[in-house]
Amino acid sequence: MSLPKRVNLVEVGPREGCQFEGIGDPTRITTASKVQLIDALAATGVGAIQMVSFVSPRQVPQMADAEAVCAAITPRAGIVYSGIYLNDAGLKRAMQAGVIEISGKLSFTASDAFSMRNQRRTHAEDVVMQGKIAALYRAANIAITHGNIMAAFGCNFEGEIPLSRVLDYIAELQSIAGGGLKSVSLADTMGWADPEMIRRAVGEVRTRWPDMRVALHLHDTRALAIANVYAALLEGVSDFDTAVGGLGGCPFAGIQGAAGNVCTEEVVFLCRQLGIETSIDLHAMVECARMAQDIVGHPLPSKLINANLDLPT
Amino acid sequence: MSLPKRVNLVEVGPREGCQFEGIGDPTRITTASKVQLIDALAATGVGAIQMVSFVSPRQVPQMADAEAVCAAITPRAGIVYSGIYLNDAGLKRAMQAGVIEISGKLSFTASDAFSMRNQRRTHAEDVVMQGKIAALYRAANIAITHGNIMAAFGCNFEGEIPLSRVLDYIAELQSIAGGGLKSVSLADTMGWADPEMIRRAVGEVRTRWPDMRVALHLHDTRALAIANVYAALLEGVSDFDTAVGGLGGCPFAGIQGAAGNVCTEEVVFLCRQLGIETSIDLHAMVECARMAQDIVGHPLPSKLINANLDLPT
Repeated sequence: MSLPKRVNLVEVGPREGCQFEGIGDPTRITTASKVQLIDALAATGVGAIQMVSFVSPRQVPQMADAEAVCAAITPRAGIVYSGIYLNDAGLKRAMQAGVIEISGKLSFTASDAFSMRNQRRTHAEDVVMQGKIAALYRAANIAITHGNIMAAFGCNFEGEIPLSRVLDYIAELQSIAGGGLKSVSLADTMGWADPEMIRRAVGEVRTRWPDMRVALHLHDTRALAIANVYAALLEGVSDFDTAVGGLGGCPFAGIQGAAGNVCTEEVVFLCRQLGIETSIDLHAMVECARMAQDIVGHPLPSKLINANLDLPT
Repeated sequence: MSLPKRVNLVEVGPREGCQFEGIGDPTRITTASKVQLIDALAATGVGAIQMVSFVSPRQVPQMADAEAVCAAITPRAGIVYSGIYLNDAGLKRAMQAGVIEISGKLSFTASDAFSMRNQRRTHAEDVVMQGKIAALYRAANIAITHGNIMAAFGCNFEGEIPLSRVLDYIAELQSIAGGGLKSVSLADTMGWADPEMIRRAVGEVRTRWPDMRVALHLHDTRALAIANVYAALLEGVSDFDTAVGGLGGCPFAGIQGAAGNVCTEEVVFLCRQLGIETSIDLHAMVECARMAQDIVGHPLPSKLINANLDLPT
């Protein structure tokens, strides 16, 4: 493989970041701040923004304003606005939120221990749930084309995840989807991946499903996220979730020192250095990262916002 | 090339970090703290520690205690203790400091603008200076085997540095050394390198001097340092300077947000993940990073010290 000519980023900072930053203080990041950040991100040239989670307001009160955020943003043509959901109730909310584009995605978690903590379901229970979600898509005439595997590389509770399990779960999702999956996202939810794991996983998925697009969702918990992006680029991967400023984080570490998603502006910078198109204005994204830093009120992990840098225009 | 089986790290945190942290407040990092950190690092299994700079105490007062540090550490067998010097006066001090192992290294800076700021010499003046330094080595029967190019990838004052100039300067150093250079270190002093620049530079040096070892000194100013290490490993590079905790920084940014050298424990972690031996105990190095953070009194860039991580033993 050679480096891709163009990379598509999904900006997940508003969802991941505001969800994480609001732990223990759900109204600390106001709805108005979320809307301000989303609207600013929409002006950077990014093609997709994951804005909110449609999850239980009791368990995740900091996302209780999901519908309010959707109603308050100023939608910009050409941008895919999305939200996540972990069950059928969440999908129904997403379908009614108006601005949210539903992508027909099914999801498994490769670690049962993490699944129990995050979704309160075993894998067997998740098979049933993904069937329910699939039925809702079909009833709404939404093609089921995307698969997602969370904790695909490792888990703080189970350790390294065998690649064979990830492949088995993709096959199960493909079966629930009736064979329609065209892309699969591998999420390194707790930052366990390394560059060679990334290359091996991408290679094995492609060996088994030669036409499958592989997307990556990477966390920088163990400091290897940008190296993992480079490794993925070497394999021709062109779809990544990234978070402005490096927003987000691991709930198992204090907010101050937690490492979130791989940082959008750092991935944009890497791509520009490698001659890969992203559609994103680097300087505008750096400004959004500064805005995000002001909103959360503490330094974000991004290197590019904290130094007086000479960046390419 | 394939990944190296073993990587040799030079721990440069005491020199780079204490030099940077002491800007504007030269006694903030006490001699005792420097000694404590160096002695702790020596117990991690690292093979080499760059401790101090033998530079003008007037211009760099935070390194005025270089000799005192050398006298106060508890030297450990098998460890190469080193210091840097930018001129013949500094080399003479290093030679008399006792514990310092002199390696017969000549150095150029690929950016004249940076050279004027850092060494107060033009390249032409540096040719004369490196000749003086070479004469001192010869008088002391020290083989001249190492070359060093600072600002080898880019400069905040000049922009990108052409690789042809780096190759020319290596050839000049080789000439001053009488053809004895066996290794050359490329220093990305201001964090301008990207993974493909690294691979191209390493490849070109090897094409021209097939037996030359290439070492790298990388800064994380623009967030790509760990990706650059991975790219270098893919080219079989096995010699890196790294700094515990990610100590060090760019004098053109505030201390708090400045990004220093590529972080030792993060490189050790990457190597372990890739099955590459480093001789360093990861947990001991993480403890040293925590010590360094306590000494400097503010959060260091290292991701591995700030999260509750499950690291390999």
